[in-house]
Amino acid sequence: MESGTSEPKFAHLGPTHTPKSYTFKGAKGWRRYRLFQPGRGMYHDVKRRLPYYWSDITDAWTYRTFASTIRMYFVNLLPAIAYTLDMTRRTGYFYGINEALFSSALAAMVFSIGAAQPLTIVGVTGLISLFNYTIYDIIKQYDVTLYPSFMAWTGIWAAIFHWIVSFGNYCDYMRYVTDFSSESFGMYVGIIYCVKGVEELVNEFTSVSPTAGFMSCMIAILYFGSVYGLEKLGSSTMWKPFVRGLLADYAYVFTTLFWVGFAHIPGSLEDTHVSYVPIQQAFHTTTGRSWLIDFWNLPAKWIFVALPFGFLVMLLFYYDHNVSSLTAQARQFPLKKPAGFHWDFFLLGCTTFIAGILGLPMPNGLVPQAPVHTDSLTVYETRLDIIHTIDGEDEDIRRPLVEATAVVEQRISHFLMGLALIGTMTGPLLIVLHTMPAAVFAGVFFVVGWGSIESSGILKRLIYLQSESRFIAPSNPLLTVPRRKIVLYIGLQIFGVAACVAISQTIAAIGFPVLIIALIPLRIVLMPNLFTKKELSVLDALTADGEAVLASLGGRPEMDGEGLKGLENGESRAEEGLNGEDGLRMKRTRSGSAVRQRAGSFTR
Amino acid sequence: MESGTSEPKFAHLGPTHTPKSYTFKGAKGWRRYRLFQPGRGMYHDVKRRLPYYWSDITDAWTYRTFASTIRMYFVNLLPAIAYTLDMTRRTGYFYGINEALFSSALAAMVFSIGAAQPLTIVGVTGLISLFNYTIYDIIKQYDVTLYPSFMAWTGIWAAIFHWIVSFGNYCDYMRYVTDFSSESFGMYVGIIYCVKGVEELVNEFTSVSPTAGFMSCMIAILYFGSVYGLEKLGSSTMWKPFVRGLLADYAYVFTTLFWVGFAHIPGSLEDTHVSYVPIQQAFHTTTGRSWLIDFWNLPAKWIFVALPFGFLVMLLFYYDHNVSSLTAQARQFPLKKPAGFHWDFFLLGCTTFIAGILGLPMPNGLVPQAPVHTDSLTVYETRLDIIHTIDGEDEDIRRPLVEATAVVEQRISHFLMGLALIGTMTGPLLIVLHTMPAAVFAGVFFVVGWGSIESSGILKRLIYLQSESRFIAPSNPLLTVPRRKIVLYIGLQIFGVAACVAISQTIAAIGFPVLIIALIPLRIVLMPNLFTKKELSVLDALTADGEAVLASLGGRPEMDGEGLKGLENGESRAEEGLNGEDGLRMKRTRSGSAVRQRAGSFTR
Repeated sequence: MESGTSEPKFAHLGPTHTPKSYTFKGAKGWRRYRLFQPGRGMYHDVKRRLPYYWSDITDAWTYRTFASTIRMYFVNLLPAIAYTLDMTRRTGYFYGINEALFSSALAAMVFSIGAAQPLTIVGVTGLISLFNYTIYDIIKQYDVTLYPSFMAWTGIWAAIFHWIVSFGNYCDYMRYVTDFSSESFGMYVGIIYCVKGVEELVNEFTSVSPTAGFMSCMIAILYFGSVYGLEKLGSSTMWKPFVRGLLADYAYVFTTLFWVGFAHIPGSLEDTHVSYVPIQQAFHTTTGRSWLIDFWNLPAKWIFVALPFGFLVMLLFYYDHNVSSLTAQARQFPLKKPAGFHWDFFLLGCTTFIAGILGLPMPNGLVPQAPVHTDSLTVYETRLDIIHTIDGEDEDIRRPLVEATAVVEQRISHFLMGLALIGTMTGPLLIVLHTMPAAVFAGVFFVVGWGSIESSGILKRLIYLQSESRFIAPSNPLLTVPRRKIVLYIGLQIFGVAACVAISQTIAAIGFPVLIIALIPLRIVLMPNLFTKKELSVLDALTADGEAVLASLGGRPEMDGEGLKGLENGESRAEEGLNGEDGLRMKRTRSGSAVRQRAGSFTR
Repeated sequence: MESGTSEPKFAHLGPTHTPKSYTFKGAKGWRRYRLFQPGRGMYHDVKRRLPYYWSDITDAWTYRTFASTIRMYFVNLLPAIAYTLDMTRRTGYFYGINEALFSSALAAMVFSIGAAQPLTIVGVTGLISLFNYTIYDIIKQYDVTLYPSFMAWTGIWAAIFHWIVSFGNYCDYMRYVTDFSSESFGMYVGIIYCVKGVEELVNEFTSVSPTAGFMSCMIAILYFGSVYGLEKLGSSTMWKPFVRGLLADYAYVFTTLFWVGFAHIPGSLEDTHVSYVPIQQAFHTTTGRSWLIDFWNLPAKWIFVALPFGFLVMLLFYYDHNVSSLTAQARQFPLKKPAGFHWDFFLLGCTTFIAGILGLPMPNGLVPQAPVHTDSLTVYETRLDIIHTIDGEDEDIRRPLVEATAVVEQRISHFLMGLALIGTMTGPLLIVLHTMPAAVFAGVFFVVGWGSIESSGILKRLIYLQSESRFIAPSNPLLTVPRRKIVLYIGLQIFGVAACVAISQTIAAIGFPVLIIALIPLRIVLMPNLFTKKELSVLDALTADGEAVLASLGGRPEMDGEGLKGLENGESRAEEGLNGEDGLRMKRTRSGSAVRQRAGSFTR
C-alpha cells in the first residue's frame, strides 16, 4: 500500500515533527487514483497520532483542562439547545431535547476517545437543523409517517458516503480550501444564526403573547450585550491577567445564570410566561417511540430517494466538519501534536450511522466551538509591548501583546464535557434546563452569529474600503491591490453568501452545501483569470496551513504556481494591516464566540 | 466705581485679548466688599462684550450655524420633554409640555439676544423638575391649591437673590470651582438621569401594561445603542470627514425619527399602546388656568415660606448655570470672544422671575447642551498624526488627531433654535410631538446620563486604579501620587455624589444644591490638609480656565499657593495619561451627549 516516496527518519526531530510519509505527490500510474489505495490516509493518521495517545491523558492535569471543560459544556450545550428549539417545532416534534443531548453526548464520547484530533468538538449544528426540517417539509408533502425511517436511511447513506470518502483519501482536497470560501461560509453561518435568533423571538410573539415577545427581545438584547461586554473586559488591560482570564473563560456561564434568574423574578417578569426549554422524561424519545427506528420497513423506493439526501449530508459534513477541524488547528495555536482528517471523517461516518438509525440529529464539527475549545486550552501570556518612538522614552507607546505560549493538547476536557452532557440527560438536570427561557437562546444565537460576522475577513475588507485612506499604514499590503479588485473579490464572496442565505429560506435549502463547495473550484479555476497571482496572495490564504495539518492532507497544494508560496507571510501582513488601521494591533479577544485573529496579529 | 487697578491698553492686542480691568485683587478698605460696588461686574461684562455684538450676527452665515441649529433643537427639545413627562405626572399635571416649551423658548430668546455669552444654552433641566415635584410633595401635605402661587413666589424670591448675586459681583467665586466638585456634579446628574430613564420605563409598566413596558424597555435600549453607535462611527476613521461630521451632527435626529417611526409600525408594535407625549391645545396652559398666576393672593405667611425655597433655587442655578457656561467655554474650544458671568446671571434672574409668575418651569444653563452647542459650532480638522517609531517608516503608527481650529461664535443658531421652539408650540407641531413614545425619552435619558458618567474624571481614575500597572505609561503624572491618595480623592467625590443621589430620593431633595456647593469649601479648606499641593495639582484643576473666562470672574484665584499654578499643564498631562492607557490618545468624540475630553487630549 505504501507509495514510492521514501519515509524520512523523523524520530530524532521530537514530537513537534510529524512523519511526512503520506502524500500522493509524484505518484504515477494507478497510484495516482486515491480510491485505489483505500485507507492509506487513515492508516497514516492513526500511525502518526497513536504515539501521542498516552500523553493525551497525562497532559491533562492542569487548571486549563478544568476551565475548558466548564466553558465548553456551556458553549456546546447552549447552541445545541438553541438549534433544537427551532428544529423540534419544525419537524413535528420528532427531534427534541433528549435527541439533541444524546447526539451531543454520543459525539463527545466517540471523538474524545477515538479521534485523531480530540480538540475538534463535534455536536449539533444549526445547519443540520436546517437540513432536517427542510427534509421534513419535503416528506410531509407525501407521507409524514415516513419521516423517521427516511431520515434513518439518509443517515445510513450519508455514513456510507463518509466511509467512501475516508477510505478513498478524499479529505486531501481540503487542502485546496482557502479563506475565500471559508470566510464566506463563516459569514453565511453567522447570518443564518442571527436569522434563527430573530425567528426564536418571533415565535414568542406568535405562540405565547406580545408581552412574552417584547420581554424576550429585551432579554435577548441584554444577554448579547452582557456576553459581549464581559468578553471586551476580558481582553482589556483592566485588572490582573488572572481576573481577565476568568471573565473570558466564564462569560457565558455568568451571563446565562444571571439572565435565567432574571426571567424568574416574580412580578411583571415571571407573569409574562415566556416559553422555556421543553423537556421530556429522561432517556425517553420525544415522540415516545423506541430509540431504534424501524428503518427496514421503509419502502425500497424511498430508500433510494434518500440516497441523494445522504450525499448532500456528506457534502455538508465534508466541508463543515473538516473546516471546523482546520480552524481548531489554525496557525495561531502553537499545536505540537499531529492532525488526522481521514480517520476523523471515518469516525464521523460512524456517528452519522448511529444517529441515523436512532433518530438523532446527526452531529458534526462545530464552528466556533471547535476553535474555542483549542482557545480555552491555550496558555496565553500578556506581554508588555513597548513601541519606541523617536520622541524618547516618555512618549513610548505601551500596549498589551497577548501571546499563545502553549496548548494543553489532551482528550480529557472533551471527555469530561461529554460526561457532563450525559449527566444533563438525567431527570434532575433536565428540570434545570426547563428553567431556561427561549429568549436566552435567542441571545446565544446573536452572540454566536455576530461573532462569526464580526470576525469575518469580508467585513474587515469592507471596513478597509470605507476607511479614510490617509489613516491606512503605508505598509498595508492591501494597498498593492487596486481597489476595484478588492471590490470584485468581496463582491464574489458576498454573492456566494447571498445565494446561500437565499436558498436557505426555500425548500431547496438542502442544496446549500453544493453552493458552498462550488466556491472552491470557483476560486481555483475561475479566479486566477480575474486576479493576478500577487493580488490573490494578498487577498487570500490557505485555510489549512502548518505542516502538522497538511501532513494529513497529503502536503501543501501547488496551486497558482508560486502565487501562494509567499502566502503565509503575505496574509499575515495583510491582516496586520487590517487590524492596524486604528493604530492598534488587534488584541487576542479570547472570545467565547469566535477566534477573531490569526497569528499575524501576534507578531510584528 | 472703578477700583484702583489701572486699565491696560488692550485694543492693539486684537480680539483675542479681553480687557483685564475687572478685579478685586489688591482692593483695600471698603472696596474689598463686593456688594459695595454693585453692578461693577455686570458693567464690565457688557463693556467687554458689546463691541462684538455686530460680529455675533455677521459671523453666523456658515453651514456650521445651520447644522448647529438643527442639532441643538433636538438636543435641547428632547431632554426638556423627557424631564417634563416626569415632572407633569409628579406635580398634579401643573407643568406640562406647553409650559416646558414656553420656558425653553423664552430662555432661548432672552439669552440669544441679550446674553454676554450666547453660546450657553438655557432651558429646562432635570434638576428643576426634581425641585418642582419635591416642593409639590411638600405643599400637598398642607393645601395643594397653594402650589401655583407658592411656585410663583419661589420664582420671585429666586429672581431677587439672582439680582443680589449679580449686582454684588458674587459670580467671582465661581473661579474657585475645581474639577473636584464639577466632576462630582456631572456624575450626580448622570446618575439622576439614568434613574429618571428607569422611572419612565417603570411608569409604562404600571400605568399602561406590561406589554407596553417591555416594548418601551426594548425601544429605550435600542435607542441608546443607536445614538451611541452612530456617535462612535462619527469619531472613527471610516468614510470622509464630511460624512463623519453628518453622523456626529445628526445622530439624535436620525435615531429619533427611526425609533418614533418604529413604534408606529402596525401590528404587535402599535398594539402595545405605549404612552405618547401628552399635549394640550396650542398656547394654552396645561391646567386651563390663565398664564399669569395670581401670586398676589398667596397668604403672607406662605410668601415668606417661599423665601428659603427661592434661595435654594438661586443656589442651584448659581452652580448649575455658571458651570454650564464654564463648560461651554472650556479650554478645548478656541474661543476668541469674552465671557460675562455677572450679566448673564442677572438675565437668568429675569427669566426666573417671568417663569415664576407665568407658572413655567424655571430655565437655567444646560449641561451637556451648552458645551454641545459650542462643539457643534466648532470647526474641527482631522489631521493625520504619524508617530515615528524607531523601527522605521513602515512601522510608524498612523492615527487621527482631531483639532479644533475655530469656533463660529455667534447668536443666530441660538436664536433660530428659539424660533423653532416657538414653532413647536403651534398646533401642527404639537401633534407631531404627540407621536413620540415615552420610551424614546427614556432612551434620551440613558444617552445623556451615561454620556455624563462615561466622561467623568471619577470613572477615568477608577479605571486607572483598576488597570494593570505595567500598561500605564511611565510619563503618567498620576504615578507620582500614592494610590491611597487617589483612592481617598475619588472616595471623597463618590461620597459627595452618593449623598446627593440619596437625598434626591427623599423629600429633602431640594437641599441638594447645598451639598454640591459645600464641596467647594471642602476642597478649598479641608483638602489641602489631606493632600500635598503637588498631589492636588495632579488630581485637580480649575474648571474655569482661560483668561477670557477668568477676566469676568476677577482674575485667576490664588489658592493653594503655587500648587495650582502649574495646573494647566499638570492636568493636561494627567488626562493624557488616563486616555493614553490603552495606547491611544482619546479621539474627539464630537458626541451629542457629552464633551468627553479636554485640550490635553489634543496636544502632546
